[in-house]
Amino acid sequence: MIFQYIGDEVKFVIDERGKKYIFNEEDDFHSDLGIIKKEDIKKSNIGNILTTHLKREFKVIKPNVNDFIDLMNRQCSILIKKDIGLVLAYTGIGNGDKVLDAGTGAGAIALHFGNVVGNDGMVYSYEIREDFSKIAKDNIDSFRMNNIIIKNKDIKEGIEEKNLDLIFLDLIKPYEIIEDAYNCLNHGGFLVIYGVYLDVIQISHKILKNAGFEDISIIESLNREYEIRTQGIRPKTRMVGHSGYLLFARKL
Amino acid sequence: MIFQYIGDEVKFVIDERGKKYIFNEEDDFHSDLGIIKKEDIKKSNIGNILTTHLKREFKVIKPNVNDFIDLMNRQCSILIKKDIGLVLAYTGIGNGDKVLDAGTGAGAIALHFGNVVGNDGMVYSYEIREDFSKIAKDNIDSFRMNNIIIKNKDIKEGIEEKNLDLIFLDLIKPYEIIEDAYNCLNHGGFLVIYGVYLDVIQISHKILKNAGFEDISIIESLNREYEIRTQGIRPKTRMVGHSGYLLFARKL
Amino acid sequence: MIFQYIGDEVKFVIDERGKKYIFNEEDDFHSDLGIIKKEDIKKSNIGNILTTHLKREFKVIKPNVNDFIDLMNRQCSILIKKDIGLVLAYTGIGNGDKVLDAGTGAGAIALHFGNVVGNDGMVYSYEIREDFSKIAKDNIDSFRMNNIIIKNKDIKEGIEEKNLDLIFLDLIKPYEIIEDAYNCLNHGGFLVIYGVYLDVIQISHKILKNAGFEDISIIESLNREYEIRTQGIRPKTRMVGHSGYLLFARKL
Amino acid sequence: MIFQYIGDEVKFVIDERGKKYIFNEEDDFHSDLGIIKKEDIKKSNIGNILTTHLKREFKVIKPNVNDFIDLMNRQCSILIKKDIGLVLAYTGIGNGDKVLDAGTGAGAIALHFGNVVGNDGMVYSYEIREDFSKIAKDNIDSFRMNNIIIKNKDIKEGIEEKNLDLIFLDLIKPYEIIEDAYNCLNHGGFLVIYGVYLDVIQISHKILKNAGFEDISIIESLNREYEIRTQGIRPKTRMVGHSGYLLFARKL
Repeated sequence: MIFQYIGDEVKFVIDERGKKYIFNEEDDFHSDLGIIKKEDIKKSNIGNILTTHLKREFKVIKPNVNDFIDLMNRQCSILIKKDIGLVLAYTGIGNGDKVLDAGTGAGAIALHFGNVVGNDGMVYSYEIREDFSKIAKDNIDSFRMNNIIIKNKDIKEGIEEKNLDLIFLDLIKPYEIIEDAYNCLNHGGFLVIYGVYLDVIQISHKILKNAGFEDISIIESLNREYEIRTQGIRPKTRMVGHSGYLLFARKL
Repeated sequence: MIFQYIGDEVKFVIDERGKKYIFNEEDDFHSDLGIIKKEDIKKSNIGNILTTHLKREFKVIKPNVNDFIDLMNRQCSILIKKDIGLVLAYTGIGNGDKVLDAGTGAGAIALHFGNVVGNDGMVYSYEIREDFSKIAKDNIDSFRMNNIIIKNKDIKEGIEEKNLDLIFLDLIKPYEIIEDAYNCLNHGGFLVIYGVYLDVIQISHKILKNAGFEDISIIESLNREYEIRTQGIRPKTRMVGHSGYLLFARKL
Repeated sequence: MIFQYIGDEVKFVIDERGKKYIFNEEDDFHSDLGIIKKEDIKKSNIGNILTTHLKREFKVIKPNVNDFIDLMNRQCSILIKKDIGLVLAYTGIGNGDKVLDAGTGAGAIALHFGNVVGNDGMVYSYEIREDFSKIAKDNIDSFRMNNIIIKNKDIKEGIEEKNLDLIFLDLIKPYEIIEDAYNCLNHGGFLVIYGVYLDVIQISHKILKNAGFEDISIIESLNREYEIRTQGIRPKTRMVGHSGYLLFARKL
Repeated sequence: MIFQYIGDEVKFVIDERGKKYIFNEEDDFHSDLGIIKKEDIKKSNIGNILTTHLKREFKVIKPNVNDFIDLMNRQCSILIKKDIGLVLAYTGIGNGDKVLDAGTGAGAIALHFGNVVGNDGMVYSYEIREDFSKIAKDNIDSFRMNNIIIKNKDIKEGIEEKNLDLIFLDLIKPYEIIEDAYNCLNHGGFLVIYGVYLDVIQISHKILKNAGFEDISIIESLNREYEIRTQGIRPKTRMVGHSGYLLFARKL
């Protein structure tokens, strides 16, 4: 987790109900559960309990990227974990890699990319809508991620980066970007397209082949959660039936 | 990708059939497709084509962790990408984190962990079988990953690390390790258990609750691949029906 | 469809909103959409439109067993179509067969069995709870199915029928019935156990093998619905993640 | 099961290895496991063991429609049980109903339809290919199903039946038949289209709406089989990832 300031100027805290907070060391914390003084916040470490004047407890924990996403201002839909996981595992993106994503949305997948490419890597995130790019920028800033750059820019006007290891597109017409994407990827790099409708995947697939991409595959995943009751174990009654399809292609 | 030597002393190369190789700069490359001289290997860069004396082509590419896993000596089953992806995305493990896994097997998930925690992070991998730990050590060494330590050790004898962000168990009886795991995790850290049989998940679940873990969830994923033919788009006829269940628990 | 009286003394009718009714030929029909006279009901045929004095339309249709289930008094959960379909297709139950099911619940699967075994077959349905058996009896009677007998009886006290082609158990402890079931089945007949929890399936499986059953298989099905919008085709966002497991066994 | 001759002129028999046979009462049975005399066959009943002169055992069982399909001459692919089950359960087809299917193929779904509509119902099965229709006819004849008529006819030339309760299409271009199908269905009847490619489903869906069909739904099902080993219970490693999509529509 590369959020440098944690354990430093701010603390990530969870209350008795599981609600999460970022505590600033420069201010007292006020809530319906009582007050915690900034001196107490300052000297606390991971695992410590902070107690309000009403005797309610808050625990300092080491956060992960999903904790930040949970706290994020989200005014647009975000990619869900099962799909982010497929992108991470199938592309093998990691430390030191250069990644581009478009559109940013609230910035959830950019945060995951930033989390794994680390300080030696870089994430460029294009978002055409000014309001969304502002939200994402504020989210990134408040988590002090230095390796993510949000650009309020239409990716159709051209990709400005070269030698990218991964380009991830969550756009309505991703197939318009495919040729430019090919030129901006490293040999060995991946283009990944996320699409809710199979039609978009089908069109993109055709253009990918013409553009020279190889190792093309289309994947969807279904995640099932189980629950344990006194009678035994069983999958939950309801599940997510669909989020989107993922189209993977590699420049070789 | 933290394999420092790539583009340096060795090259990752792919032939016309998609077969992958690691070329050493200190030796000529010999194969049924012909010979490439070490001088040519030395001065090649990502994207370059190396041509044998028989006019057969090899392309230098930038590899990812999966390319290394494909080349690895694998004498035991390895975790598949869909499951690795779930672990990465649900735990949000990333740059700078400390991870422990047991048992190592051929080292596939350790390589993925090493890939995302980067040079500031660390992976400790316990393997009870001497033969497997040797294979994994050789695999890691040949890829020159400095942030992964393979230990030929029975994890039941005790976890030697503290303040871990993730403990991942792929063992026959993972529930024997749960209490020790709790003590060695950071507040905020995750224990993830991979189990092929639901019975193991059920037993582990009970012990996890007693040990103080929270946010417990049991997940399995099904991945479907699609294919495109002239008639249209359709899922492939055969798919993997099961690999294993994942049990996530957090120390809060 | 063996509901003999349809097109005869009563009519199955659907209004403009898709709401379903059974119209009796002996009474005028009154509703918020207006009145239809019994003479009009009497002389109507499948496909005819009946118009109220308020000019609202009702269409006479040929119903199927699911239409009756939709109209049924349902005070307990019923088996869903995907599971009923598996039972029908895997056992190949059909015209002239003798079927037993327990517990009846509201009678949905008994109605499906009655629908396919026809006038030459027979369905015996055991329900231990008096209230449920009464609801089911009323449901069956109002649809005038002569080939279904609801018994308010604890099946543990013994199965009274012999030479059955199918015994279907939807009970909390189905494994208590297995030996008796074996004795009452035809050679070639099936025992099918529906269970929400895998634990029950596991126990039952063991007892089935000891009791002499063969061709044992455990199946679950996941059904996904698709939707078509202007942008294209996609699975629905939400789906049923679990209803129950089906355990099939045959006496050979 | 409406195969009238069972227990009459022929016997359905299973050997020690689970292999199935139809024994004719008019001939001795010869095999590598030995000979059974026609007199023994004639006087045998369900559940009896027939023993060859080599002391190998064959058991007379009561067959179901799937036993016949297993014995059938199958030179073309057949619909699998999970899809047949969905058609049966969602349309609620049963005793006395009139069903049409096209194309017949080897006749598997026609046999299932014949099995549930019984002696009071009727199945009309259109097959354009002469060779397939001959195979299906022979299959039906050898099972002496009197309620199935195989027609070697191109359904595009027109449906000859009226007031059908179900029309099932397993064709390359099912959408060419939709208007005619509408006219030949009862009010309340179903059109069901089976399609391997989503593209066909999408085109058909559009035409169905224009033709006046209602209650349109698109469904696919995934079936998972479980296995029990000494370690516990788990789904099988491999499963069928896709057979086809089912498009249901009703004439109301």
